[in-house]
Amino acid sequence: MYRDRIRLSSLHSKVMSAADAAGLIEDGMTVGMSGFTRAGEAKAVPHALAERAKQSPLQISLMTGASLGNDLDKQLTEAGVLARRMPFQVDSTLRKAINDGKVMFIDQHLSETVEQLRNQQLKLPDIAVIEAVAITEQGHIVPTTSVGNSASFAIFAKKVIVEINLSHNPNLEGLHDIYIPTYRPTRTPIPLVKVDDRIGSTAIAIDPAKIVGIVISDQPDSPSTVLPPDDETQGIADHLISFLKKEVEAGRMTNRLGPLQAGIGSIANAVMCGLIDSPFEDLTMYSEVLQDSTFDLIDAGKLRFASGSSITLSSRRNADVFGNLEKYKDKLVLRPQEISNHPEVVRRLGIIGINTALEFDLYGNVNSTHVCGTRMMNGIGGSGDFARNAHLAVFVTKSIAKGGAISSVVPMVSHVDHTEHDVDILVTEQGLADLRGLAPRERARAIIDNCVHPDYRAALNDYFERACLRGGHTPHILREALAWHENLEETGRMLAL
Amino acid sequence: MYRDRIRLSSLHSKVMSAADAAGLIEDGMTVGMSGFTRAGEAKAVPHALAERAKQSPLQISLMTGASLGNDLDKQLTEAGVLARRMPFQVDSTLRKAINDGKVMFIDQHLSETVEQLRNQQLKLPDIAVIEAVAITEQGHIVPTTSVGNSASFAIFAKKVIVEINLSHNPNLEGLHDIYIPTYRPTRTPIPLVKVDDRIGSTAIAIDPAKIVGIVISDQPDSPSTVLPPDDETQGIADHLISFLKKEVEAGRMTNRLGPLQAGIGSIANAVMCGLIDSPFEDLTMYSEVLQDSTFDLIDAGKLRFASGSSITLSSRRNADVFGNLEKYKDKLVLRPQEISNHPEVVRRLGIIGINTALEFDLYGNVNSTHVCGTRMMNGIGGSGDFARNAHLAVFVTKSIAKGGAISSVVPMVSHVDHTEHDVDILVTEQGLADLRGLAPRERARAIIDNCVHPDYRAALNDYFERACLRGGHTPHILREALAWHENLEETGRMLAL
Repeated sequence: MYRDRIRLSSLHSKVMSAADAAGLIEDGMTVGMSGFTRAGEAKAVPHALAERAKQSPLQISLMTGASLGNDLDKQLTEAGVLARRMPFQVDSTLRKAINDGKVMFIDQHLSETVEQLRNQQLKLPDIAVIEAVAITEQGHIVPTTSVGNSASFAIFAKKVIVEINLSHNPNLEGLHDIYIPTYRPTRTPIPLVKVDDRIGSTAIAIDPAKIVGIVISDQPDSPSTVLPPDDETQGIADHLISFLKKEVEAGRMTNRLGPLQAGIGSIANAVMCGLIDSPFEDLTMYSEVLQDSTFDLIDAGKLRFASGSSITLSSRRNADVFGNLEKYKDKLVLRPQEISNHPEVVRRLGIIGINTALEFDLYGNVNSTHVCGTRMMNGIGGSGDFARNAHLAVFVTKSIAKGGAISSVVPMVSHVDHTEHDVDILVTEQGLADLRGLAPRERARAIIDNCVHPDYRAALNDYFERACLRGGHTPHILREALAWHENLEETGRMLAL
Repeated sequence: MYRDRIRLSSLHSKVMSAADAAGLIEDGMTVGMSGFTRAGEAKAVPHALAERAKQSPLQISLMTGASLGNDLDKQLTEAGVLARRMPFQVDSTLRKAINDGKVMFIDQHLSETVEQLRNQQLKLPDIAVIEAVAITEQGHIVPTTSVGNSASFAIFAKKVIVEINLSHNPNLEGLHDIYIPTYRPTRTPIPLVKVDDRIGSTAIAIDPAKIVGIVISDQPDSPSTVLPPDDETQGIADHLISFLKKEVEAGRMTNRLGPLQAGIGSIANAVMCGLIDSPFEDLTMYSEVLQDSTFDLIDAGKLRFASGSSITLSSRRNADVFGNLEKYKDKLVLRPQEISNHPEVVRRLGIIGINTALEFDLYGNVNSTHVCGTRMMNGIGGSGDFARNAHLAVFVTKSIAKGGAISSVVPMVSHVDHTEHDVDILVTEQGLADLRGLAPRERARAIIDNCVHPDYRAALNDYFERACLRGGHTPHILREALAWHENLEETGRMLAL
């Protein structure tokens, strides 16, 4: 059954159990695993590693593309395997261990991890564990539903374990475009000038002698947990679409817009779904994760082509897309996250980047990661890769959370992931603030008037007006700047409304 | 005398007085002027404009490359001419007007202004005023000591005023390399792969019919105000050079290092001067401003080539360099700031970016602009263009200021210009913290142990330890996080030591 998936027959002898493969991972090693936004992660080996650690403790430094599915970060955390973790995660058990200071988490721009490895600024992986649909006649690795950092991990590691996952459609082969930038100081431009350009190979080229183990698995990716659009997310989508219509009317872009990027999660997915009923046509995506909305837009005839680093679908969409892959295959490409998120390409293509904020402040600084400035949620992910270089850097969030106990618009954010320099457009269900070309006091006016929930508007206006009396380019009252967060920590509400 | 500087003879009739040229600027106009780090600014026309406004008030939106010399921002501010100003300034009178909310200042990454103009996200200049050494036979403009945003301003404006400044060495012609990226969606890679590549033309190509006035001036650039190295800046240089030596020993770079970028100002200049006595050789710069240290390094045989957007020298160096330009000309190029600072090129070349912090915090977030979170100093300038994409993002500062009343290392910065994601190395005269691959708690340990002044070390340790007891990925005590700044505002000292 699996032998036709390993087309270099000399590798057939490398097939082993997941437990034996996990045995190749030693205490203290740095391990690079496939997996990006719960898609295409190695599944059997990390599970076996967690099982082994219950008997015989060991700790590793684990780097992946982004988040893992199948509760693997939970299992590895509970088994005490993770000493260090980078560059992204979404698991609640791991999150707690990070916030307790038990796992050292390095929260990185997703385009940067392999650049730092290439320059030996991070410790290179000793071993890579990569999920594949096949190994080619040359011994090259064909990834599954994500590329992430897999190619560079396999290139940099001395040893590679391949998990052939039979649950994936073998027709995924051909979907990937593996391009690796050359080394400095003789690096040349990335030759990608259109979202559908193919500039690399369809498999990860490594010396097959590095493949020390092949594990056969059949566990599917976890379904995405994206929520369907609701009134608020629909409101956000409506505001953004009206704004984009005006941009087209003003001649700043055509009806095709620019290539779209949408962060992972329910709000960005809902915004993308909103484009189904928009007047825009012949759209393209140049994004990191392709979610349900990508395929809904393709089905609706709105989206011509989508470039990403992974495909993460809900149960509703999964069988339909992967069971009919031939229908979508000529409209898709999966790239290494270094390329899907590369500042060079993002700046060149003129991307409209739509990402979710945890909170933003009066002046447009955005916190994407830290609850009350201290507790990590997931990580910055690719939002900075896109926002910093996008044609339009859009951040979206609902104006309130926890039934109104929290305002997403605050006097000063408790942690900054995206500075006011890198934020063009803010949208809540209340409205949209266009911050382009505005000075801080003007930004504050636009944000208060358009984005704040009515319950918090008077308080924010009061703060801003009193701050302005004190002066400054960016007026603040330092003793009160973080008071809403202090109240939240102490009373469970930002303000006693 | 000046007629040989205007080589398209049909333009000779356009010569007029500065006052007449200033008369072409109307109330409410957006004006783009040359000038970058007090080099190559138009001088006669803005002076005449300020004089005119004293009699007949008018207001404009003024965009430049970066800061202007010759007190022009002061004169324009005092005359009430500036309604809006972007993207950078260093003048104390203008600074006060900005902080009083009287001038709307848009503080921008220096690579981005022209991109936003090209995409019509900012209002295009109605008129451009560009200093030149000559106008060519084709009617093209040869800039002087800076390129800045001059090329795009001249291209986008309907009308152009040229100031031919006879005080500049006409041999500046040939030094510039004017490359303008093509429009999206058909933009191609910037074909620059080495610091000394020439990819454009030596003059700004516009339709000469747009030239509505030519003014002859002879006022020199203002000398730079850079201070000579002192014990602290020498200490910073020493720490950084030892670190770079270790990088070479570890095989992460060669003895040629990567292309160097240094922010404007005394500290970065002193660090660069420190390289004269270093073991590194055959160095290159890919920076925005070329200061005294650039020429000191060339004279010392250490620096092979320097690419910048302007040349800003002290009185000591000025006559020597511009009087002997032929000695340096084949080792220099001046580019538009969009190219000198372009993320695509910065990431490709693997730059070592050295910029000055106003303050940084326990976790490596950097404030480059705002005193106590509110009062603008100068602006972010190019620091973000470089830090975000550099091979090594280095920030330098003295550990204390105002005789010890201020610690440059604080629990939480009062304003964030560069997030912890974008900061690799922090250096004070106390030592160097290498933050690469570290989690926040590890970053805090490295920063406290290496960078903080001894007078503040115990207090910062105490804050950090108590914050850690509360937990969180990035531990903080919100009620105390900005207390040092509050104390400074209220008592003139961060702590009663």
